[in-house]
Amino acid sequence: MTQMLAARAGEITTAMKRVAEKEGLSPEFIRQGVAEGSIVIPANINHRNLDPVGFGKGLKTKVNANIGTSTSFTDIEKELEKLKVVLEAGADAVMDLSTGGEIDQGRRRIIEESTIAVGTVPIYQSFLENRNKRGSMIAMTADDLFEVVERHCSDGVDFITVHCGITLEVLERIKKQSRITDIVSRGGSFLTGWMLHHGKENPLYEQFDRLLDICLKYDVTLSLGDGLRPGCLADATDRAQIQELIILGELVDKAREKGVQAMVEGPGHVPLDQIRANIEVQKTLCKGAPFYVLGPLVTDVAPGYDHITAAIGGTVAAAAGADFLCYVTPAEHLGLPTLEDVREGIMASRIAAHAADIVKGIPGALEWDKKMARARKALDWDEQIKLAIDPQRAAKIRQERNPDGHEACTMCGDFCAMKIVAQYLGKEPESC
Amino acid sequence: MTQMLAARAGEITTAMKRVAEKEGLSPEFIRQGVAEGSIVIPANINHRNLDPVGFGKGLKTKVNANIGTSTSFTDIEKELEKLKVVLEAGADAVMDLSTGGEIDQGRRRIIEESTIAVGTVPIYQSFLENRNKRGSMIAMTADDLFEVVERHCSDGVDFITVHCGITLEVLERIKKQSRITDIVSRGGSFLTGWMLHHGKENPLYEQFDRLLDICLKYDVTLSLGDGLRPGCLADATDRAQIQELIILGELVDKAREKGVQAMVEGPGHVPLDQIRANIEVQKTLCKGAPFYVLGPLVTDVAPGYDHITAAIGGTVAAAAGADFLCYVTPAEHLGLPTLEDVREGIMASRIAAHAADIVKGIPGALEWDKKMARARKALDWDEQIKLAIDPQRAAKIRQERNPDGHEACTMCGDFCAMKIVAQYLGKEPESC
Repeated sequence: MTQMLAARAGEITTAMKRVAEKEGLSPEFIRQGVAEGSIVIPANINHRNLDPVGFGKGLKTKVNANIGTSTSFTDIEKELEKLKVVLEAGADAVMDLSTGGEIDQGRRRIIEESTIAVGTVPIYQSFLENRNKRGSMIAMTADDLFEVVERHCSDGVDFITVHCGITLEVLERIKKQSRITDIVSRGGSFLTGWMLHHGKENPLYEQFDRLLDICLKYDVTLSLGDGLRPGCLADATDRAQIQELIILGELVDKAREKGVQAMVEGPGHVPLDQIRANIEVQKTLCKGAPFYVLGPLVTDVAPGYDHITAAIGGTVAAAAGADFLCYVTPAEHLGLPTLEDVREGIMASRIAAHAADIVKGIPGALEWDKKMARARKALDWDEQIKLAIDPQRAAKIRQERNPDGHEACTMCGDFCAMKIVAQYLGKEPESC
Repeated sequence: MTQMLAARAGEITTAMKRVAEKEGLSPEFIRQGVAEGSIVIPANINHRNLDPVGFGKGLKTKVNANIGTSTSFTDIEKELEKLKVVLEAGADAVMDLSTGGEIDQGRRRIIEESTIAVGTVPIYQSFLENRNKRGSMIAMTADDLFEVVERHCSDGVDFITVHCGITLEVLERIKKQSRITDIVSRGGSFLTGWMLHHGKENPLYEQFDRLLDICLKYDVTLSLGDGLRPGCLADATDRAQIQELIILGELVDKAREKGVQAMVEGPGHVPLDQIRANIEVQKTLCKGAPFYVLGPLVTDVAPGYDHITAAIGGTVAAAAGADFLCYVTPAEHLGLPTLEDVREGIMASRIAAHAADIVKGIPGALEWDKKMARARKALDWDEQIKLAIDPQRAAKIRQERNPDGHEACTMCGDFCAMKIVAQYLGKEPESC
């Protein structure tokens, strides 16, 4: 039984209890959210060592980190090192986007070693296997695709990105749209190529029930992919993107009918003043399904700094109601991220998530900032480092720049302006 | 004659022409903005090698970088190295906040070597000189202070931060307010200590006309400092802060009456959902004076990443109408920035400024992103690097991760999905 079906049956599962505990909310609140679909708890019955996390309405904004091999970098050990960084840096979920080396083996090891939810994009592997076995990605059959989906799900993957919303109808829309960057989603491009070559409907759409049956079996959460997400600011929030979102909204309904948990993926590259509209229209079209956004990046011109462009957009998106932020690393648009990039990307996204949680009124969010403010006021450096979102980084910079650990100020002696101000305000003196 | 008086006399100065040229706007638009005070062009008559920049309504959002010695790090040569980075990284203004070593000499060299506007905070030096000469900062007299102000102005400083809005009335407000971090502005704290010790009104307020006379003489732009800016999210947008802003608004009127250019400084630490209100209330209270904000930082908990917390707030602030962003480096709250921190801070602020300029509809802003999008679509790496906000960084990452410089894709040969998509859309084929 999926979390959703259990919730509807009035059952508060162990996972719901754990999520409630982590969020500081009542288990009943979580149960209701899962029952109606505004909260998802990706928790595959075969992911044994998962410590479940909830995503959605009323919960803390969550952060995902992508890892995975590529055709040029096939070493799974490197990716397992990244997984350690991902866990240590505090991401809430990890996606294995491997497209090189022993993909099955790598995924199984990632699931084994991950205590956080693991997501994948099965279509990558399905296309790759066809290229390798039959010399052509286009040779893929619907059966091939669903076989890979089931392989991922039976392995214990907690959520899968499936580009179900790219239909022949939607492709007509993009043709009329005239975009600069057309389709930038990898899975979306592959599928589109397949559909156009064969002149057939997207099997993930046409056989959506088959997908739901697999998800039901393992309680895999659908992450309905936005294959037509904008690849640049100029393409944002266009008719093709919103048409696909409408289809995804319909599929959310279908998933819920069957008791399958579903969230929806979103952009991408979006100008700052279109972000709120993107979130609000997703919430209405998809009837409150959790929204998982990639960025959004607020400018196209900052390769090398896209963790920052994404943190800007991510904060505004989450404050407007986005539930789950996919990290972007400084290497985005340039190459595969290093360990340091992964860490930096997670921190930038966690900052965005937290800054938004303050605005969302998430219990405890502003309290963290207040504690830091009090530690600053008291010049309590140990406490400041402890409270920092990245204590390791804060301690390092502090140590480098202030090797002697000066805490108090000896500059003005008895004529300390700070002391005078503090006395006036009836407080303990501080230093400048 | 100041730029403002010239503008009012109908004169289009060389500086106005240069600003118009840089902005792609008409000289008459600039003249009108300067005449009414919605645009300032900080351009001291003694700053010989200045290439003037405008700040304000209808213009690109600008970025300031702070440099300067401290009591622990007194080497001016290091700060001159930072100035080189500041110029190379594309900041629009630089503030010399030196409080250590040979302050006069350092400032003069910075002005000499800076082609961008130079700002200072004269009160730091005035207090320090009193501490050094008389053993007490509190010993400062109003005459001492104005003497230092004139010294800075006659040296060629283009804009000065003066905390004129901290009045005895405002201090009553902060006493009633009950803040966590009270006063975090250095100049603000010193002045407050001085005022409370002597039981006297702030000389920068009481003798504001004297300040205006000095500014008139050299055409120095006032940057009316926010001595009571919030030092943490919990203190943001409180009565003390807004009370000071009201006073600053009155002083903007006075400055304009005399023909002195004035901008206003703003916070600080502000939750995301209070940023727009901060900008809008400044624009009404200060009758459209350019707004120069420090950040704002959208969370207190990210020391080591405050260039990111500031970029988030800065984007939203600038999109709402802020004109000028003071950079924040990764070392903020931890120590003095290194050269790398300075560079990183400027880039983060430039990203914020540009992302906001797209939303502000600044001519050419979105066009830059479109060019990048087209270069991405065409897989034109040279063009992508050239168009990057930091070509040096983008090239470095690209080179490290892709040493062979692969441009085309050989993965799928004739069955390239991209090719099929491109053909369908009637475009040139691309690669995945």
